[in-house]
Amino acid sequence: MPGKILVVNCGSSSIKYKLFDADSLTGVAGGLLERIGSRPAVLRHEVGGTVARSEVDVSSHRQGLEIILRVLLEAEPKAIGSLKEIVAIGHRVVHGGDTFFESTVVDDKVLEALRKWARLAPLHNPPNIAGIEAARSLLPSIPQVAVFDTAFHQTMPEIAYLYAIPYELYERFGIRRYGFHGTSHKYVAQKAAEILGEPIEKLRMITCHLGNGCSITAVKNGHSIDTSMGFTPLEGLVMGTRSGDIDPSIVFYLIGEGFSPREVEDLLNKKSGLLGVSGVSNDIRDVEKEAEAGSKRARLALEIFAYRAKKYIGAYAAVLGGLDALVFTGGIGENDPLMRGMICSNMGFLGLKIDEDANGATVGRTGVISSEQSKVKVLVIPTDEELAIAEETRKHLLNH
Amino acid sequence: MPGKILVVNCGSSSIKYKLFDADSLTGVAGGLLERIGSRPAVLRHEVGGTVARSEVDVSSHRQGLEIILRVLLEAEPKAIGSLKEIVAIGHRVVHGGDTFFESTVVDDKVLEALRKWARLAPLHNPPNIAGIEAARSLLPSIPQVAVFDTAFHQTMPEIAYLYAIPYELYERFGIRRYGFHGTSHKYVAQKAAEILGEPIEKLRMITCHLGNGCSITAVKNGHSIDTSMGFTPLEGLVMGTRSGDIDPSIVFYLIGEGFSPREVEDLLNKKSGLLGVSGVSNDIRDVEKEAEAGSKRARLALEIFAYRAKKYIGAYAAVLGGLDALVFTGGIGENDPLMRGMICSNMGFLGLKIDEDANGATVGRTGVISSEQSKVKVLVIPTDEELAIAEETRKHLLNH
Repeated sequence: MPGKILVVNCGSSSIKYKLFDADSLTGVAGGLLERIGSRPAVLRHEVGGTVARSEVDVSSHRQGLEIILRVLLEAEPKAIGSLKEIVAIGHRVVHGGDTFFESTVVDDKVLEALRKWARLAPLHNPPNIAGIEAARSLLPSIPQVAVFDTAFHQTMPEIAYLYAIPYELYERFGIRRYGFHGTSHKYVAQKAAEILGEPIEKLRMITCHLGNGCSITAVKNGHSIDTSMGFTPLEGLVMGTRSGDIDPSIVFYLIGEGFSPREVEDLLNKKSGLLGVSGVSNDIRDVEKEAEAGSKRARLALEIFAYRAKKYIGAYAAVLGGLDALVFTGGIGENDPLMRGMICSNMGFLGLKIDEDANGATVGRTGVISSEQSKVKVLVIPTDEELAIAEETRKHLLNH
Repeated sequence: MPGKILVVNCGSSSIKYKLFDADSLTGVAGGLLERIGSRPAVLRHEVGGTVARSEVDVSSHRQGLEIILRVLLEAEPKAIGSLKEIVAIGHRVVHGGDTFFESTVVDDKVLEALRKWARLAPLHNPPNIAGIEAARSLLPSIPQVAVFDTAFHQTMPEIAYLYAIPYELYERFGIRRYGFHGTSHKYVAQKAAEILGEPIEKLRMITCHLGNGCSITAVKNGHSIDTSMGFTPLEGLVMGTRSGDIDPSIVFYLIGEGFSPREVEDLLNKKSGLLGVSGVSNDIRDVEKEAEAGSKRARLALEIFAYRAKKYIGAYAAVLGGLDALVFTGGIGENDPLMRGMICSNMGFLGLKIDEDANGATVGRTGVISSEQSKVKVLVIPTDEELAIAEETRKHLLNH
């Protein structure tokens, strides 16, 4: 397939982008525009091994996208000779609610649905929508494809996605488990099946996306059947600054002590997790350094992080009725043998055993880190959400 | 040992009591005084197979306890000939915080500590304290023993009891996992070891207390190492009217929709769980009847209840590094083979298999319900918190 696919991930004040060759899906160029709305905004653009950093004047996602298209056309070496080379744009969209089971070409009806789900993702969907609207008006003749963080998890059964709260709250407000990181979980689950040479339809897998946000998914026969993030990305595992699971009564207790609901929400989202327990950092590398240097709280943060992941692996093994493969991805999952080792320790009852050497040697690359005798295969697979979005986007071109 | 032990469980407007022979620990008499502070209060007293119901005028726990002592002395057949026969009183106390690792004889210092922990159990500790104070003033010369719901869980390691929230919240407010139902979990874990004829020091056990409140505990070598109820009894499993685990962001979302924090707290504690999902009842027997009659939501409530228990069993098997015994107790655990069967279905990966006939036949009594080949023994053990409190109380008499 000739041409290029542009993948766009719009945050509240940023646009991350990557340009792929539509045929080979190799990356051609990419970058990050940050501080939209501030003066100055900052653009980091990379093409052909050259990285250029520039200050630009950008007050909206539309202006940001214009600048990105211009730099793709003009920065040397030129990534594209003409805008006509771009055959589709793939957009990361955080929340597809329970409307979207897979990626979709955006039309007015889709945009309307995304606006509806913005209610549940007030920080994420509005910039995603702004990016789609900007791209539609700048390049009106090509397909805009929305790829949802929630889509992969739409196969969860009711028993996994319903909370034990009044059913009317589900009907009236859509309060249920949605799950996130779906593009990543799906991508690494498929890669894992390829690497194992087994049909994904026959595998019971657990995929651990451990980055600054962390989630874990039970994948049965290629489908997500449960995942740790819930109604929002706060639930589940310990994360960089998020608490994950807590007794919900803690919220009421703190409100009773004089905190406002907004303060408690901030505290659980931005001051908890590795940062809150260690008092050091939300970055696990810093926490590990401090633990190594003797900090008891840093050590504790790591141990709680591992312990909670271990509990989810056990829970999902029960849900899957056993386990064939465990996959690590994300910044921590790909690069942190120490944490992977802590999580996988003493899992013999599942038939899971790490090969210490393979674990230590597999950093930032794909590899199998279970021992020869381990019944459960343990894999490290670098995730590539941009590539996964490009793949999804291309699918829609082929169908056109 | 001559004499009698009185066990007292004071709720906000009730006193449950049971009198035991101190030597044989057989029950001699017992009953329930309800609606303290209403007119009339109601006393149900049972002795020697005779049940008497009477209306009484009681405005305080002290008056209530006076009436209970009088009825023990006077109701025919007389349970005691003189108050001097009572050699100790054992009190159920819900929250012992992280001060009490085991039951203790109450003195002024203990009472002071209980008042401190009342902050964390505002519904439960104040009536528990009122009961102790009444008993001390009515029977000042005998030991009053406090037996804590939280004590058995005080062996949990930090990684299990700390939440991934700012460490300062633990230091300042004591926000951590405490766990409840400890007297029951400890009692059935010890009974299970006796029945299996194995030293408890060598067993990895999971005990499921499933009643109107539900909790599940990982017991290693006789010690609780993790449990599903947390800072309060709201966290964990699905219960009659309590949600158990949810995404804490649901609280903030509902507050944003106009609910007050108090309304959300009520909703999660009193209108959720089996009741909230089924729309039928908080009583699993009613829910099962409706499910049988074709109610989809009733069916769903049961399936979610079982699914969430199954996840905890998997999680705790991982924490224990494997499983030797699974114990069911509490109203549902003792009497509901259907639910036990749902929870234990498809657990072959743990080496756990139910014997359907044994499961169906074991209702309201002790029994082993796993199949011959099952590596994990599954037991039903009726809990007896009053007896457990009497046993604890007697220990302190022997030490005196």
